[in-house]
Amino acid sequence: MLDLRPVGYVIGLLVAMLGATMVLPLLVDLAQGQGHWRIFLQSGVITVLSGGLVALSCSNGVKEGLTIQQTFLLTTGVWLALPLFGALPLMMGATELRFVDAFFEAMSGLTTTGSTVITGLDELPRGILLWRGILQWLGGIGIVVVAMVFLPELRVGGMQIFRAEAFDTMGKILPRATQIAAQISVIYVFFTFACVLSYLAVGMSFFDASVHAFTTVSTGGFANYDASFATFTGPAEYIASFFMILAVLPFVLYVQLLNGRYKPLLRDSQVRVFLSVVAVLVGIVAVALTRMFPHHWEQALREALFNITSIITGTGYASVDYMLWGPFLISLFFFIGLIGGCAGSTTCSIKIFRYQLLFSSIRVQLQRIRSPHGIFTPRYNGKQVGPDVLNSVMVFFVFFIVSLGLFAVALALTGLDFTTSLSGAATAMGNIGPGLGEIIGPAGNFSSLNDPAKWILSLAMLVGRLELMAVYVMLTAQFWRA
Amino acid sequence: MLDLRPVGYVIGLLVAMLGATMVLPLLVDLAQGQGHWRIFLQSGVITVLSGGLVALSCSNGVKEGLTIQQTFLLTTGVWLALPLFGALPLMMGATELRFVDAFFEAMSGLTTTGSTVITGLDELPRGILLWRGILQWLGGIGIVVVAMVFLPELRVGGMQIFRAEAFDTMGKILPRATQIAAQISVIYVFFTFACVLSYLAVGMSFFDASVHAFTTVSTGGFANYDASFATFTGPAEYIASFFMILAVLPFVLYVQLLNGRYKPLLRDSQVRVFLSVVAVLVGIVAVALTRMFPHHWEQALREALFNITSIITGTGYASVDYMLWGPFLISLFFFIGLIGGCAGSTTCSIKIFRYQLLFSSIRVQLQRIRSPHGIFTPRYNGKQVGPDVLNSVMVFFVFFIVSLGLFAVALALTGLDFTTSLSGAATAMGNIGPGLGEIIGPAGNFSSLNDPAKWILSLAMLVGRLELMAVYVMLTAQFWRA
Ligand SMILES: [K+]
Ligand SMILES: [K+]
Repeated sequence: MLDLRPVGYVIGLLVAMLGATMVLPLLVDLAQGQGHWRIFLQSGVITVLSGGLVALSCSNGVKEGLTIQQTFLLTTGVWLALPLFGALPLMMGATELRFVDAFFEAMSGLTTTGSTVITGLDELPRGILLWRGILQWLGGIGIVVVAMVFLPELRVGGMQIFRAEAFDTMGKILPRATQIAAQISVIYVFFTFACVLSYLAVGMSFFDASVHAFTTVSTGGFANYDASFATFTGPAEYIASFFMILAVLPFVLYVQLLNGRYKPLLRDSQVRVFLSVVAVLVGIVAVALTRMFPHHWEQALREALFNITSIITGTGYASVDYMLWGPFLISLFFFIGLIGGCAGSTTCSIKIFRYQLLFSSIRVQLQRIRSPHGIFTPRYNGKQVGPDVLNSVMVFFVFFIVSLGLFAVALALTGLDFTTSLSGAATAMGNIGPGLGEIIGPAGNFSSLNDPAKWILSLAMLVGRLELMAVYVMLTAQFWRA
Repeated sequence: MLDLRPVGYVIGLLVAMLGATMVLPLLVDLAQGQGHWRIFLQSGVITVLSGGLVALSCSNGVKEGLTIQQTFLLTTGVWLALPLFGALPLMMGATELRFVDAFFEAMSGLTTTGSTVITGLDELPRGILLWRGILQWLGGIGIVVVAMVFLPELRVGGMQIFRAEAFDTMGKILPRATQIAAQISVIYVFFTFACVLSYLAVGMSFFDASVHAFTTVSTGGFANYDASFATFTGPAEYIASFFMILAVLPFVLYVQLLNGRYKPLLRDSQVRVFLSVVAVLVGIVAVALTRMFPHHWEQALREALFNITSIITGTGYASVDYMLWGPFLISLFFFIGLIGGCAGSTTCSIKIFRYQLLFSSIRVQLQRIRSPHGIFTPRYNGKQVGPDVLNSVMVFFVFFIVSLGLFAVALALTGLDFTTSLSGAATAMGNIGPGLGEIIGPAGNFSSLNDPAKWILSLAMLVGRLELMAVYVMLTAQFWRA
């Protein structure tokens, strides 16, 4: 028999913790003196009580460790339960969102997607803006833990390649998720502080610096203004680019750095390939921009760097409306969104290491076609890769593309045009934020979409955030057998 | 040392044979009494002489069999040389095309893509229309031979799964390409005759029936009229649908039928899945059409059947402008084009058997995630499939999608919008014909595209027609080593 109590216990605790964090926007709104703080008091009480009661009622079933079945249910359950409660302040507060919109916004926050259905951000109580930032910050740290601890163990989408690595690094001393989470949290909090200070240094207010630091290091991309990051053009764009890139390098390398080992970071092939890809793309776009617009070279370089970094890391801030950058750059941005950052970070989408493995596999395939009797083995980071990992990665890629097609067709069924449907499916599955076209492009907003489309996109965000398999495995009959 | 003479010999012979077929449009134009026949005399003489001279000069190097290297060069070389000469009548004749347009049209013909740059088809000399039909008919039979004989031997894109099958069927009696080709030719010619007679029976002129039969059984999709198949709405649509479907079932099953074995055709899982997919899609589209338009159910069913069949088989005839069918059906048509028919037929695109293998692989993957210590094996057509084949298929899929992205970005670089770029890349790589949008949609025409876009699309047609690997393998350094 499937015992749901251990799953309910952990989810309950996490929900209660989410409720506890509502004290922060409560205090901010209290300081503003508007009375809007009551919303967070009510939401917080409801959330803490609900979570606490569930945890309490399940606490008699808690054992050492979880079965595979329970681990999957936990992973998906967390990302379903937290948006439900995270939506409360958005429904009850000044935004007065309907349930579908509030759930979409909270899911977009916790999956670090950053697509928003809220307009008039500039006029909102600060508590709401801070709450959106907190959702993304928590979603970011949450996914790093899941990507470093759970997915490799569950052998999802080729993530098992990082299994030995993560545990080798920690040695036998830190074998548990909570302990890995603690080390990662130190790094994540450090990045956040450094980002806040850097934003302050270039003139942002303390509130803006904090919220945008939350949504930068989580590569979430929510902003406090309808104009997104266009409010802060200039040096802030360089700072944001720097921290967005830091946030999508493998966190295991930072843990090693903390432990005094800097060589893995310098030698990691995923990091090298990722930085090279960014450099090449920034170069291409900067050249294209200087040709199209009478831009100073610095402006071209800055806009290229910021917007490429924003899309490839899956942050999704916009500093300009790149729908005005002409057909080449528009199409390029669509495909760049399908690349993503490094595994074991806050990034989503397909990710660099998978492309490295796919291209390695393609090269081997071409060698085999040419010399059917030769022996060729794909490599990653200097080591041979077994067929198990390669197969997982390819299945992931196929599944990602097929899911993208199905989500796009489902969105089209709700009446959205081809570009909006396809780029909407991609931006949701890749947890990026903006899509293409007038409706959901960098200058648009998701509020005008119909309700079914918002549900479909919410599901796509969830599926994409948990690397597909972690959700889809529950759709198989076999999963539910004991 | 790489000996190019055996390759040159076969290509030369095939070019000469192509030149010889120009006698047919010559005779048709002669009968029309317009003097346009001289074009085909001149083109024919040039082509036969060029091909003959190359074959003659290479004949001293002909040996038994070809090396793998030579086989690849031959396959790609044929599909580069024939369009060059096939373009001659289009440049010299009434169409007066520039080289880029003529090459595009001939490549579109010989790859059975069916995208056209010619407008005013209704006014053209019949010789030109017949020539376009002949290019597609030859391209169709050519690709069946390549797909049944060459690709399985070259282990391209998982086609090796049909290796044993093709040769088992033939027994040891017919081990050679020429003999397999002879059997296939009988079937192909029989289908063509049956199609001509059927078209005649519903009132087409003999000329229209012949040319459209050529472009139906080859799933090429060139039509004699700017309105494409809209000229023949009614019973002709059912006939066309029937023959398009016949043309994309595995030809090896017809060979077995010829030899008195009908069971393989009835039991083949690829055939069953393909027919089921068509049935489901026709049902969905027919229902959608009756809801959108005040259609009689027969019209809805007929338009759904004809247009779905036309896209999924990669024929690309249009009987209506489905860009007017609303966003859902437009997006659906894009993804249907990426399905394709069965392997070893005239169809192109990704093909049903690859999806069967991919889904089988995904199912196994999900089972393994759930039960890491269980043993699960993917199956196809009731038999276990080795990792070699699965790997080939997945590499093919990944490569197809990545190539699609690169071709789309390249097209966007020439200034085409997102929808035109992406659907243009897909329709060319899938050898389908029409794309999406106003420019290259079912009511559009490829003539207004810029020259670089036409070259890119020509390359995409070639790469897609030869299942990618057969072309890309030549881009590796290793290929050219002895
Ligand atoms: K994002
Ligand atoms: K076609």
